[in-house]
Amino acid sequence: MSQRRWPPASTRSLSLAAFGSFHVGGRAVALQGLPPRTVRLTNAGTPAAIDPNGTHWVEAMYAQYFVPQPQRFGPPLMLWHGGGLTGACWETTPDGREGWLPYFVRRGWATLSCDAVERGRAGFAPTPQVFLDAPMHQPVHWAWDRFRIGAGSGSWHDDPQRRRPMPGGRFPVQAYDRFVKQFVPRWTETDEAILRGYLALIDEVGPCCVLAHSQGGQFALQAAQARPDVVQAVVLVEPSGFANPAQAHTLRRTPILVVQGDGQRLEGRSAALRERVDVYFDVLRAAGVTVELLDLPAQGIGGNSHMMMMDLNSDDIAGLIATWLESQRLVDLGPPMS
Amino acid sequence: MSQRRWPPASTRSLSLAAFGSFHVGGRAVALQGLPPRTVRLTNAGTPAAIDPNGTHWVEAMYAQYFVPQPQRFGPPLMLWHGGGLTGACWETTPDGREGWLPYFVRRGWATLSCDAVERGRAGFAPTPQVFLDAPMHQPVHWAWDRFRIGAGSGSWHDDPQRRRPMPGGRFPVQAYDRFVKQFVPRWTETDEAILRGYLALIDEVGPCCVLAHSQGGQFALQAAQARPDVVQAVVLVEPSGFANPAQAHTLRRTPILVVQGDGQRLEGRSAALRERVDVYFDVLRAAGVTVELLDLPAQGIGGNSHMMMMDLNSDDIAGLIATWLESQRLVDLGPPMS
Repeated sequence: MSQRRWPPASTRSLSLAAFGSFHVGGRAVALQGLPPRTVRLTNAGTPAAIDPNGTHWVEAMYAQYFVPQPQRFGPPLMLWHGGGLTGACWETTPDGREGWLPYFVRRGWATLSCDAVERGRAGFAPTPQVFLDAPMHQPVHWAWDRFRIGAGSGSWHDDPQRRRPMPGGRFPVQAYDRFVKQFVPRWTETDEAILRGYLALIDEVGPCCVLAHSQGGQFALQAAQARPDVVQAVVLVEPSGFANPAQAHTLRRTPILVVQGDGQRLEGRSAALRERVDVYFDVLRAAGVTVELLDLPAQGIGGNSHMMMMDLNSDDIAGLIATWLESQRLVDLGPPMS
Repeated sequence: MSQRRWPPASTRSLSLAAFGSFHVGGRAVALQGLPPRTVRLTNAGTPAAIDPNGTHWVEAMYAQYFVPQPQRFGPPLMLWHGGGLTGACWETTPDGREGWLPYFVRRGWATLSCDAVERGRAGFAPTPQVFLDAPMHQPVHWAWDRFRIGAGSGSWHDDPQRRRPMPGGRFPVQAYDRFVKQFVPRWTETDEAILRGYLALIDEVGPCCVLAHSQGGQFALQAAQARPDVVQAVVLVEPSGFANPAQAHTLRRTPILVVQGDGQRLEGRSAALRERVDVYFDVLRAAGVTVELLDLPAQGIGGNSHMMMMDLNSDDIAGLIATWLESQRLVDLGPPMS
């Protein structure tokens, strides 16, 4: 196990103009015909008959914001997590270093860290009345095997001393057991609800940039297609999905940066996925969309895991992304405060 | 509906020495005998056979911390939410004002905002393998009816214009629809796992004060009993439960402040609950425990809802709590940074 997390590691002070959060989006659904339940809500209470029928608000999402003082860039940056994760993945690395959320805030970006519909503080809808399927829970070895953290087949062991990490890997493997505590259950048939939530968020916030990881990538692309005048730039960190290629032209005004890690270590399903994603980006380029590839191994940066925002060189990669973002022609809205 | 949330309301700047988060606690469980599932994890992927069996990490919890610069008080303050809620309830009020989390950070308290086991970014365990029951989802009218926001029976309506708020009430009712988006499902048989999570958090952090709301109250009292040398003060905002009265003497070193709102508006189940809680605090006092009551109506402060950290006078109540906390003899650990 990794070291204690309190007191937090010493660091430079950070000045904020504002921090807070809000929920946004969702819809009302009427549930009826459900049986009443008798529950005890607290140890000082008596059993109560609870009627779960009535109007429920479902499929809202959560965003937490940090506005630095001074704010150097006009449009806020949104961080959209991957599958099975929440906004927590951007905050502190499993081994206790500052993550990409503080990185971008310190650099002068007003930043929103989001929990998508069904994830984290967004909450989830009644199952199977609204979410039709059961959620998926990840065993602890999945990320080890699938995220280029372990050395491949047979490298996992419940005993940390007997695991074989990826040779030359950048993930802080001694903190892997801390990392897996971050995983939350996910559904697999909620894509449309998640996208609706992100669109409600964009409509609330206005002009913005989106930095999305893994599963978040498809929503970032779809949102940029749906709101081409609002989403000003998109950064995709190892995206696992895409938007409709037949509408590629709608992305012409949105510069896109794709960040890919250690491609040569990909095998099997991950390699096939990468191939399909690459084909999609070629379709975008052919339609006149600006798609730049930040291929880390090609730049001599090897060993990164799929969770590169937690890797030992996470700040270096954030710096490359920030430099790209700051070189785009973004609408400068000025500081958000009056 | 309430107004847009971006850009955030103008406010004073705030200097932080650190902010971040961690997950803590939980346990490994081995799941076996579950059927494989075929799922499609992304729109670029192909259907995959997923084996849910194996070791899962369950019942961890989440804490996000904000260390102000300068930090005026040694022991950090933990905020523990109530039932069906997450740490989001402390951040920004539904009508967009700063909540108690920024309040205490601005005042100089290193503050941890927590998501208990099963709630928010803590995630939840497989059901019914680990959590034996199904979660409970709250219809939108529950809080209106039960939290002294509405005017009682028959005052709710799905149309905001046709609702009847509590006369003289302090809840920002025009933002009620924003508030209900915060509710997340909750289980009713997870008390022991939640308490274990909080104890793991305390063991990680060390000396601390706890401010708990509603359902959080029973865990704060139980945690203080289990860690009497570590939990230095407890504030209970309308607690809905308690610890074992037979062990009241173990709380003798822990000063307790109980904050109660508009008692005269209580009726039915809430009044009976309040009565049982009051009896418990009398048992504590008889055992030599310091229990102070901050009875808001007795101080001329009427109309508060159960969600007083969101009420229009939320800062006033936070001020009364902070003054009490700062008058206790807390171990001053000095600033946490080296």
